[in-house]
Amino acid sequence: MDLITRYQEVRRRTEKICSYLQTEDYVVQPVVDVSPPKWHIGHVTWFFETFILKPYFMGYQEYNPDYNYVFNSYYETVGNRVIRTDRGNLSRPTVIEIYSYRKYVDEAMEGFLCGEISDEVKELMILGFNHEEQHQELLMTDIKYILGHNPLFPAYNRAHAAPDMEKVVSDDFISVNEGIYEIGFTGDGFCFDNELNRHKVYLNAYQISPKLVTNAEYLEFINSGGYQDFRHWHAEGWDWVKTNKVEAPLYWHNIDGEWHNYTYHGLEQLHLKAPVTHISYFEAYAYASWKGLRLPTEFEWEAAATQFNWGQRWEWTESSYLPYPGFAKAPGAIGEYNGKFMVNQKVLRGASEVTPPGHSRITYRNFFQTNLRWQFTGIRLAK
Amino acid sequence: MDLITRYQEVRRRTEKICSYLQTEDYVVQPVVDVSPPKWHIGHVTWFFETFILKPYFMGYQEYNPDYNYVFNSYYETVGNRVIRTDRGNLSRPTVIEIYSYRKYVDEAMEGFLCGEISDEVKELMILGFNHEEQHQELLMTDIKYILGHNPLFPAYNRAHAAPDMEKVVSDDFISVNEGIYEIGFTGDGFCFDNELNRHKVYLNAYQISPKLVTNAEYLEFINSGGYQDFRHWHAEGWDWVKTNKVEAPLYWHNIDGEWHNYTYHGLEQLHLKAPVTHISYFEAYAYASWKGLRLPTEFEWEAAATQFNWGQRWEWTESSYLPYPGFAKAPGAIGEYNGKFMVNQKVLRGASEVTPPGHSRITYRNFFQTNLRWQFTGIRLAK
Amino acid sequence: MDLITRYQEVRRRTEKICSYLQTEDYVVQPVVDVSPPKWHIGHVTWFFETFILKPYFMGYQEYNPDYNYVFNSYYETVGNRVIRTDRGNLSRPTVIEIYSYRKYVDEAMEGFLCGEISDEVKELMILGFNHEEQHQELLMTDIKYILGHNPLFPAYNRAHAAPDMEKVVSDDFISVNEGIYEIGFTGDGFCFDNELNRHKVYLNAYQISPKLVTNAEYLEFINSGGYQDFRHWHAEGWDWVKTNKVEAPLYWHNIDGEWHNYTYHGLEQLHLKAPVTHISYFEAYAYASWKGLRLPTEFEWEAAATQFNWGQRWEWTESSYLPYPGFAKAPGAIGEYNGKFMVNQKVLRGASEVTPPGHSRITYRNFFQTNLRWQFTGIRLAK
Amino acid sequence: MDLITRYQEVRRRTEKICSYLQTEDYVVQPVVDVSPPKWHIGHVTWFFETFILKPYFMGYQEYNPDYNYVFNSYYETVGNRVIRTDRGNLSRPTVIEIYSYRKYVDEAMEGFLCGEISDEVKELMILGFNHEEQHQELLMTDIKYILGHNPLFPAYNRAHAAPDMEKVVSDDFISVNEGIYEIGFTGDGFCFDNELNRHKVYLNAYQISPKLVTNAEYLEFINSGGYQDFRHWHAEGWDWVKTNKVEAPLYWHNIDGEWHNYTYHGLEQLHLKAPVTHISYFEAYAYASWKGLRLPTEFEWEAAATQFNWGQRWEWTESSYLPYPGFAKAPGAIGEYNGKFMVNQKVLRGASEVTPPGHSRITYRNFFQTNLRWQFTGIRLAK
Repeated sequence: MDLITRYQEVRRRTEKICSYLQTEDYVVQPVVDVSPPKWHIGHVTWFFETFILKPYFMGYQEYNPDYNYVFNSYYETVGNRVIRTDRGNLSRPTVIEIYSYRKYVDEAMEGFLCGEISDEVKELMILGFNHEEQHQELLMTDIKYILGHNPLFPAYNRAHAAPDMEKVVSDDFISVNEGIYEIGFTGDGFCFDNELNRHKVYLNAYQISPKLVTNAEYLEFINSGGYQDFRHWHAEGWDWVKTNKVEAPLYWHNIDGEWHNYTYHGLEQLHLKAPVTHISYFEAYAYASWKGLRLPTEFEWEAAATQFNWGQRWEWTESSYLPYPGFAKAPGAIGEYNGKFMVNQKVLRGASEVTPPGHSRITYRNFFQTNLRWQFTGIRLAK
Repeated sequence: MDLITRYQEVRRRTEKICSYLQTEDYVVQPVVDVSPPKWHIGHVTWFFETFILKPYFMGYQEYNPDYNYVFNSYYETVGNRVIRTDRGNLSRPTVIEIYSYRKYVDEAMEGFLCGEISDEVKELMILGFNHEEQHQELLMTDIKYILGHNPLFPAYNRAHAAPDMEKVVSDDFISVNEGIYEIGFTGDGFCFDNELNRHKVYLNAYQISPKLVTNAEYLEFINSGGYQDFRHWHAEGWDWVKTNKVEAPLYWHNIDGEWHNYTYHGLEQLHLKAPVTHISYFEAYAYASWKGLRLPTEFEWEAAATQFNWGQRWEWTESSYLPYPGFAKAPGAIGEYNGKFMVNQKVLRGASEVTPPGHSRITYRNFFQTNLRWQFTGIRLAK
Repeated sequence: MDLITRYQEVRRRTEKICSYLQTEDYVVQPVVDVSPPKWHIGHVTWFFETFILKPYFMGYQEYNPDYNYVFNSYYETVGNRVIRTDRGNLSRPTVIEIYSYRKYVDEAMEGFLCGEISDEVKELMILGFNHEEQHQELLMTDIKYILGHNPLFPAYNRAHAAPDMEKVVSDDFISVNEGIYEIGFTGDGFCFDNELNRHKVYLNAYQISPKLVTNAEYLEFINSGGYQDFRHWHAEGWDWVKTNKVEAPLYWHNIDGEWHNYTYHGLEQLHLKAPVTHISYFEAYAYASWKGLRLPTEFEWEAAATQFNWGQRWEWTESSYLPYPGFAKAPGAIGEYNGKFMVNQKVLRGASEVTPPGHSRITYRNFFQTNLRWQFTGIRLAK
Repeated sequence: MDLITRYQEVRRRTEKICSYLQTEDYVVQPVVDVSPPKWHIGHVTWFFETFILKPYFMGYQEYNPDYNYVFNSYYETVGNRVIRTDRGNLSRPTVIEIYSYRKYVDEAMEGFLCGEISDEVKELMILGFNHEEQHQELLMTDIKYILGHNPLFPAYNRAHAAPDMEKVVSDDFISVNEGIYEIGFTGDGFCFDNELNRHKVYLNAYQISPKLVTNAEYLEFINSGGYQDFRHWHAEGWDWVKTNKVEAPLYWHNIDGEWHNYTYHGLEQLHLKAPVTHISYFEAYAYASWKGLRLPTEFEWEAAATQFNWGQRWEWTESSYLPYPGFAKAPGAIGEYNGKFMVNQKVLRGASEVTPPGHSRITYRNFFQTNLRWQFTGIRLAK
C-alpha cells in the first residue's frame, strides 16, 4: 500500500472512532491517565506536523505555534507543554478548530507525500502510522472511561460490534520444553525499538493456558473473599486494594445483588463466559496466586504464542518492562518514545478487542503501571 | 413587575451571558471553585424544579430523576450529588440536553405562574430569582477563569462593555462619628436571611476612603517588595504567598517587563487607573498594612456607604462572616442557603462590575474564604 | 514580688511539670500542633536569651548560635528555623544538653537581674513570664497528647491532683440587659496586646448559662445521632467530621460498649458530671445548634463573666479572633506575638484546669483554629 | 559454632551498634523508611519471641501482649500493628523497658537452646540470626539518617573505623562470554528463599567494570549538568529530580563552594577517591546513561562476581526484583518475608561497608524502591 493511501486510512479510522461522540465528550479528563479525545486528535496531528512537515517539507507554514505547547505529550526535546493534569481544563482550541488543524496538516501531508520520500522519512511515516494506531486504542479506552464514569452511563454506540469471545477453548495447559529460545522482532516489517534486539533466553520447562480467565472464574475469586485475604497480594497491591477500596474489576457494578458491567452499549448484565478485563496487574497476580498458579513471563508468552489464540485482551505478564540486550535509544525526540518508561512498569503481551487490525504482533510489548485498569487487560495463567 | 415577566427576564439574562460561549467552554472546571457553565445553567433550573415545581405544581412530571444527582449543589437535605471536584468530569448531559431541560422547566413554570400563587411560593420565587442572579455573577467570573487560564487567552466577547472606572474621586477620607449605628436590612423588599436581624452596633470614630485602591497604587506595593516582606502579612497569608508563589493579582502577566492583565477582551496592557481586582483577603490586608492603614469592618462600611460610590468591586472587609443577633436558619433545605457557611470566611460588601443590576444593596453580605481571588474583589481603606 | 523570685518560680514550675517524664517523652511529636517537651523547655529559654540577654546584657556570650535555628518558634524577624513538622525528628540537642542550656541562661539571667533593670526590660521580663506560662499550659496538653496517643496509655502522674469539677451549679441562665458595654483590659497589671484597646460594644439582651456542658449532656448529643446529622454542623465542620471519622471528643474510647477517657491518670471510666472537654469549635457549635441554643460571643462572655465561675475549660465563643479597635502591633519581633494570627481562628475565653495560677483574667483572649481539640476546651451556652 | 554462642554473638553485636547512641537517638523517625533504633531492638527480639518461644518453648510466658502490636513490622498473619509512620511517635515503651524485654527474651532463649532443638527450629533460628543481621545494617543506615539530618550534624562515633576504599583497581572492563550460566544459591549454608531456585540463564557477551564509580567521577556528572539534562533520566526519575530538587547524592553539602559529606565522624570534606554512595537507582541509571554505558543485570553481576572485589556498596542492577523460576513462598507468617515485595523494586547485589561480616554472598539479593538513597548504594558499570 502506498504511503498516501495508508496515511488516509489511518487518519480516517481515528475520525470514525470519534464520530459517535458529542462535542462535550471530546473535552473532559476524569482521571490523569485519560486524555480528552480532542487532545488525542490534535496530538497525533501535531506528531506529523512536528516530525515530518516542519523538518522535511520545505516552505511548510506552521499552523499555530501555540499548538506545540498544547499538543506535545511528553517530548522534553520539543519544549514546554501543558501539564498532563491540565489537558481536561482547556476548552480551547475547540473541536472544530482542531479538525481544521487536522485538515490543514492532512492537505500538507498529501502534498508532501506526492514528492520523493527518503527512506528516513518513510520510516518516520510508518512510526507515525503506528503512533496514531496506538492513540486509536487509547481513544477507545479513554472514551469508555469518560462515558463509563458518567452517572448517566451513556452508550458509546449501541451498534458497536463487540467481538465474540465465548468460543470454547480447551482447558489443557500447553507444555513447553526447557531450552534456549529466541525473543524479539525479526523480519522486514515495522517494529518498535523496544522489540529489539532479538536475543536468546533460557527457559525452564513450563505450561501455559490456551485460554484467558473468564468473568465466571474471576467471580469465584471475588466470592471466595479474594479481595479480603492479604495472602494473595503483593504488599503494595494490598495497600492499593485497601486505600482504593477495590472490590471488583473496573466497570463492574453490583446492582441489587446482580453483577453488571459497563460496555460500549451501556450498562449490561455481566457476560460470564467472556474473558475478565479491566483488572490491574495487582489483581491479575492475586488471582493467579489464589489459584496456586502464576502469570507467564513475557518470554514464556512469546515462545508459546503460536500455540494459542490471542488478541482479545492485553495480557499481564510477570515481566518488568526492561530493555532487551543491546537496546539503544534513537537520537533526538524520537528517542523519548519508549526507553524513558523502562522502570516500574509491567509488560503486557497480545492485543485487545480495540487494538487496530494489524497493529500488534507476537513480539509486541505493551507496558503499564501495576495499578492501571482502564485498558482491556486480562489474565492468562502459567505454571 | 409580575412574576412571569420577572422570571423570563432573569432566565433570559443567564442565557445571554452564555451566548458568547463555545460548547467546549461550558464543560471544563479548571479549579474546584469554578463550576462548568453547563452545570450552572442546569443547577439554577433544578432549583426551580426542586423547590417550586415538585412541591407546589400538582401533576408536575419530573424531567429526569438523575438530574437531581447531577445538579444538586450542596443541599444535603435533597440527597446525594456529584462531588464538587467531579463537575468538570461530566460530558453528559450535553449542553443541548440541558437547554432542553431548561425549556421544559420554563414551560412548566410559566404554566404554574398563570395560576394563583401563595405568598409562601412568591417568596420562594423571589429567592429563586436572586439565586439565579448570584449564579449569573458566578458564571461571569467562572467564564473569566476558564478562558483566562487557557494558554490561548481567548476573549469572551470583544464587544463586552467594560464599565468606566477611571472617574476621578476625591482622596479625602470620610470621617464618621463614634456612636451607635443600626446595621442590617430594613424595608419591604427582598433580602437574604444573613442580612437579618437589623441590630445596633457601637462604632468608634473612624475614617473611610471614598475611593478604591487602583492598579497604579497596588503596583507600588509590588514594586516596593510587598510580596517579599513577611511583616505585612498574616502568618497564614505568608504561607499562602510562599506555597503558591504569588507575586501579583490573579490574571496579571508580566510580559517582557510590562504588566498585562486578562480581561473579557483578552490580554491587555494594565489599566493603571482602574481599581485593583482579583486579589485575596490576604493581599488586601497586606496592602493596607503596608500603607499603615486597615480594612473597614462590615459595620463601618455599611454605616458610611451612602457617602461614597460603590458597586465596581466586591470590597474585602475585616469582618468575619458571622450570624447577626437573632439569626435563625429557615427549616428544610432552604435553611442550608447561608447559615452553614458562617465560619472561616470574610465578609465582602458592595457589588462588582458583573453583579446583575439591582441585585445588591447596602446591607448585602457576600462572603468568601481568605485565599480566593476569582471574584472581582477590591480594596477600600480605613483608619 | 521581685523579678528574680518571679523568674525562679516560673522557671521551676516548668521543670516541675516535666519531672514526671521519661527522657523519651521529651522527644516525640505525634501531630504537628504538639511540640516535643524538650523543644518547649529549650524555646522558653531561647526567648529570654534572645529578647533579654543578647540585646541588654553587656558581655553576654551566646550559648550556641545553632540553638537560634533549633528553638525559634515562628519569629521571622529572628531568622530561619527548623520547620514545625521537623521538631519531633531531632534527637539532638539531648534533654541533658537542653537542661545545661537552661542552667547557663538561668545563671546569666540571675546575674543580669541583680543589676538595674529599665522599665522597658521589666516589661519584656513580664512578657517572658507570661510566655513561659503559656508554654506550661501547652506542655501539659502536649504531654497529654503524647501519652494519650500511645497504645500503652501510660499515666502522666497517678498522683496528679485533678480539680473537683462536679460541684452543682444552678441551671438558670443569667440574663443580661441590652446596652453598651466596655470590653478589653483596663488597670495596672500585665495584659497581652490583643486585649487592648478597651472599647465600647453594643450588646442585645441575652442569656448565658452559669455552668459548662457536662459529659453526660454531651453523651446525649452523641446518642441521639449528633455526629450523623449534617443539620447541626457548619459545612466545613461536616466535612471535618466525615473526613476524620469523628464520633466523640478526643481521648474518648468506647471499650465494649462503655465510654472511657484518657486522663493524666491513664484510661478511666468517663466522669459523667465533669464538664466535657477536648472538643473542637465545630463540635461546640453543633452541640449548641442541636440544643436549639448558641455559643456566646466573646463580648457577651466578658460582660457576664463576673456572674459565673470560669477557669476549668477554655470556652469556645462564636467570635472570630480579630483586632480590637486601635490595635497596633509592637515594632520588631515582639510584634509577631499575636497580630499575625488574627485570621481564621476563634476566640476562647476563660482558662483551663492546666492554666498556671494567676495567668488568666476576664479580658484574656485565647485563640485556636476551629478543628483543634488537644486543649482543655469546653462549652458554655447562650441564647 | 553452636546455636547459643551464635545467638549471643548476634545479639551482642546489635547492642554494640547502639552503644554509641544517646537515649533520644533511639526515638525519632525523620522519614518513613527509617525506623527508630528502639523499634529495631524491640522488633528483632519480638521476632525470636513470636516465631520461636511462643510456638516452641512450652510454658513460655509472653512478656507483654501489647508488644505484639508495637513491634510487629509487616506480618499481616500475626495481627494488627502500629502503622509504620507512627513508629517515631511512640515515647513508650522506653529504651530501658525495651532492653528489659530483650533481657527477658534472651534468658528464655538461652534456656530454650539448652534443650533439644529440632531441625525445623534450627532453621528458624538461623533465619532469626540473618534477620537480626539485616536489622543491624538497617540500624547503621537509620542512625546515619537520624544524625545526618540533624542540623547539629553530630558524629555517631569519632572512632568508627571506616574501611579503606581507596585502593587502586584496574580500569579495564572484564569480558564475559555469551552462554548459559547458572544463577541462584547452591550449597549447604543458609540462603534466603529469594535466592532459590538455582536455574539457567542465557547471557549475551558483556563487559563489566572491576571497580565502583568514585566520588570524583560522579562529581564530573554533576559538574557537566547531569541533574539538569532530562536525556539521561527515566521519565519517572526526571520527575523525582524536579519534585525533590535533587542536585547531589544524599548527605552531600556544598558549603561555600566546597563539597562535604556527612559520615559517621560528622561533616567531612568529600573523599574524591571513595566510591560514590547514597544514590538512588534513578541516579545510578542516569550516571551510566551519561557515560554511554549501562548497569549490569543481576545475572551478569553474579556470573562475573568472582572476578572483582565487592562488598563496599550495595550495587544497583538493571534487574527488577522478581521471583526465580520455581520460587514458592513458605506457608504462614515466614512466607511474608520476601515474596510479597516482588514488584516495583530493583535488585542490588554485593554488600556494603555496614553489612555484618559473613552476612552476604554472591547469590544474595537485596532490593529497594528506585528512589531510595539511605543505604550505602553504589554504581558498577557494564556494557
